[in-house]
Amino acid sequence: MSDIEQQLTILKRGAEELLVEQELIDKLKSGRPLRVKLGMDPTAPDLHLGHTVVLNKLRHFQDLGHTALFLIGDFTGMIGDPSGRNATRPPLTREQVEANAQTYREQVFKILDPERTEIVFNSTWCTELGAAGLIRVASTYTVARMLERDDFAKRFRNNQPIAVHELLYPLIQGYDSVALKADVELGGTDQKFNLLVGRELQKHYGQPQQCVLTMPLLEGLDGVQKMSKSLGNYIGITEPPQEQFGKLMSISDTLMWRYIELLSFASLEIIAGWKAEVEQGRNPRDIKAMFAKEIVARFHGPAAAEAAERDFEARFRHNTAPENMPEVTLHAAEGGLPIAQVLKQAGLTASTSEALRLIEQGGIKLDGER
Amino acid sequence: MSDIEQQLTILKRGAEELLVEQELIDKLKSGRPLRVKLGMDPTAPDLHLGHTVVLNKLRHFQDLGHTALFLIGDFTGMIGDPSGRNATRPPLTREQVEANAQTYREQVFKILDPERTEIVFNSTWCTELGAAGLIRVASTYTVARMLERDDFAKRFRNNQPIAVHELLYPLIQGYDSVALKADVELGGTDQKFNLLVGRELQKHYGQPQQCVLTMPLLEGLDGVQKMSKSLGNYIGITEPPQEQFGKLMSISDTLMWRYIELLSFASLEIIAGWKAEVEQGRNPRDIKAMFAKEIVARFHGPAAAEAAERDFEARFRHNTAPENMPEVTLHAAEGGLPIAQVLKQAGLTASTSEALRLIEQGGIKLDGER
Repeated sequence: MSDIEQQLTILKRGAEELLVEQELIDKLKSGRPLRVKLGMDPTAPDLHLGHTVVLNKLRHFQDLGHTALFLIGDFTGMIGDPSGRNATRPPLTREQVEANAQTYREQVFKILDPERTEIVFNSTWCTELGAAGLIRVASTYTVARMLERDDFAKRFRNNQPIAVHELLYPLIQGYDSVALKADVELGGTDQKFNLLVGRELQKHYGQPQQCVLTMPLLEGLDGVQKMSKSLGNYIGITEPPQEQFGKLMSISDTLMWRYIELLSFASLEIIAGWKAEVEQGRNPRDIKAMFAKEIVARFHGPAAAEAAERDFEARFRHNTAPENMPEVTLHAAEGGLPIAQVLKQAGLTASTSEALRLIEQGGIKLDGER
Repeated sequence: MSDIEQQLTILKRGAEELLVEQELIDKLKSGRPLRVKLGMDPTAPDLHLGHTVVLNKLRHFQDLGHTALFLIGDFTGMIGDPSGRNATRPPLTREQVEANAQTYREQVFKILDPERTEIVFNSTWCTELGAAGLIRVASTYTVARMLERDDFAKRFRNNQPIAVHELLYPLIQGYDSVALKADVELGGTDQKFNLLVGRELQKHYGQPQQCVLTMPLLEGLDGVQKMSKSLGNYIGITEPPQEQFGKLMSISDTLMWRYIELLSFASLEIIAGWKAEVEQGRNPRDIKAMFAKEIVARFHGPAAAEAAERDFEARFRHNTAPENMPEVTLHAAEGGLPIAQVLKQAGLTASTSEALRLIEQGGIKLDGER
C-alpha cells in the first residue's frame, strides 16, 4: 500500500462521507501539510464523547503531519440568537468567549496535538467584513438553495419560522473556510450542508475547494439515540474516572465495536486482532475493559484509569461493595415492607413488578445471598 | 374643515394608500414638523415626470411645514448588485454617488423647497452597522414573510433565483427609517412592502411607527403603461421646453385630469373650477395648455414655458412651419411615388392605408392645402 493509500485508509476510518476523494488524494500527493478546519460553537463547552469523534479525526490528520485549525465561532457567538427564539444561544461577551476558549483548550488538547494546532476566532475576519462584505457573501447563494438544507426545508414546509439571519450563518461558516484557506473541513453528518457552502464560497473567491469529511453522530449508551446531554445517554469528558469506566462497561457488545472504531486510537490492525480473538471465544468484556481504560486514561491519565478498573472489578466481579454506596431510609407500614416495595421505593427498580421479576430471575442479592 | 382635515385632504390627494390614517392624524395633531422620508436609488439620475409624483407629494408635506428627508441609498449603491445578474446595478464609486447626488439636488430642488429638505446618505449609519448589526436586523424578519413580497413570491414560485442578499435590501431600507426616526415614508405602490418593513423595524427598535403613503405609478403618454424610459412613453424633466410642451399637449383629454391631479400644484378648488368649465363647454385643450405651461415653467422657468406655448401654437394653430423641421429624401421609382407611399416612407404614417385614411379625412396638407 502506498503512503497515500495508507493515509486515506486512516482518514476514512469511521467516516460517513468524503467529498471529493480524488481531490483529497491530489492534496495529499502535494506533500505539504494540509490545513484541516474544525469549527465549534463557542457556547459553554461541556464536551462528551460524541463531540470527540471529529476531534479524533482531526488528530488522525495531525498524526499524519497535517495542521489542525480549531475554529471558535465567536463572531456569531457574540451575537447569539438575536431573534430570542433560542434560549440556549444567548449572546456571549468577549470575556465569556475567552473563558470558553480556555476551557476548550484544556479539553481538546487531551486529544489534539498542541504543536500542530492553530486556535482561531472568526471574529478576526468577520468584524472586518462589515455589512457590505456580508451582503457580497450573501449574494453568492440563492434563497432556494439555502432552503434545501434539511432543517430549513422541514421548517419552511411546516410553516415554522426561519429568521432571515439564519440563512446568513451557513454563509459565514463558509466564509470562514475562505478566510482560513482550508484544504479540508470536518464535521458531523448534520453539518454536511454548511461544509459544502464552504466549498462553494471558496470557488466563488477563486480558491481551491476544501474537501469535506463528515463523521457519523455517535450513538449514546442506549445504542439507539445519538449521544446528547439532554437525553442523558452520554459520557462527559470531565466526568470522574469511575463514572466513565462504568458507563463504558455498560454498553452492548455490538455497540462496543462502533465505539472502538470511532473513539479508540488503536490501529485498524489491532482492532482486527481483537475481533478475531472474540470470534475465537475470548470474552468481549476483556476488550471492552481495555477500551474503557484507554478512554479514561485519555482524559484522566493512566493511574486513574487503572484505579477505575480496579474499583469496577471489585464491585462487579468480586462482589465487594464499592467504596461509596448510597443509603436510603424507608418508612415501613405496619407489618413491615414487602421486598419488592423496598426495591421500588429505594429507586432500584421502576416498579414492583420489575422488582418481582428480578427476584424471580435471581438478579437481587441481600447481604450477598440471592 | 379643521386644519388637520385640510392637511389630510391635501396629503391624500392622488395617493393610492395611507397606512395608518389615524396615526397620521395623531402625528399631525402633535403640531411638530413631521420627518417625511423618500428614498431614491443612487444610480444615474435621469428623472421623468413619473418620478416626480412622489416628489410632489413630498413638496405638499413641505408646504404644510414638514421636513423632507431625501435619502440617497448610496450604501447599497456602492455595493451594486454583487450577484452580477443585474447589469443596470453596477457598483458605484463614492465619486459617482457624489456626482449623482449633485444631479439629484439640481433636479429635485425644482420641486422641493431646499429650506425644508435634508439630503441624507444611508452609508452614514449602514457602514457603522457592521456585519453583526446587519445580522441583528436580519433576525427581526422571517424568510417566509420576506417571500410574501410580490416579486419575490413570483420568482420563488417560478423557480427563478433570488439571491440571499436580496432579502437584506428591504431590511436595510427599513433600518434607514429607524436611523432617521421617520414619521412618514413615501413611495410608489411598488414600494409598499419595503415601506411596511420600515414600520416593523421601528416597532422592533421601540420607536413610533412611520405612516406609509403610497402614490400610484403615473401612466405614460399612451395612458396605458406606466411611464418608463424603456417604453419611450415618458417626459424627461431635462427635456427641452418644446418637447415637454408638445408631449403634454398630445395626451388624451381623460389622461389630462390624471396628470393634473398628480403633477399640477394647482389647488383642488382650482381644478374643480376647470372641470366645471369644461363641462360647460370650454375646450379641454385650453386647460391642457395651462397645465403644460405650468410643468414646463417648473423645469425651465416661465419665459421658456411661454416660448414653448407660442411655438406650439404657431405650428399647430396658425399652420406655420416650426423653426426646425426634419428633412427626408425619398427615392421614387419610375413614374413618381404615390402620396400615401411618400407619407409612409417619410415615417409620418405607419402604413399606406393609414396615410390614405388621413388623406380622405383631410388630415394631410401639402404646402398648406388639403
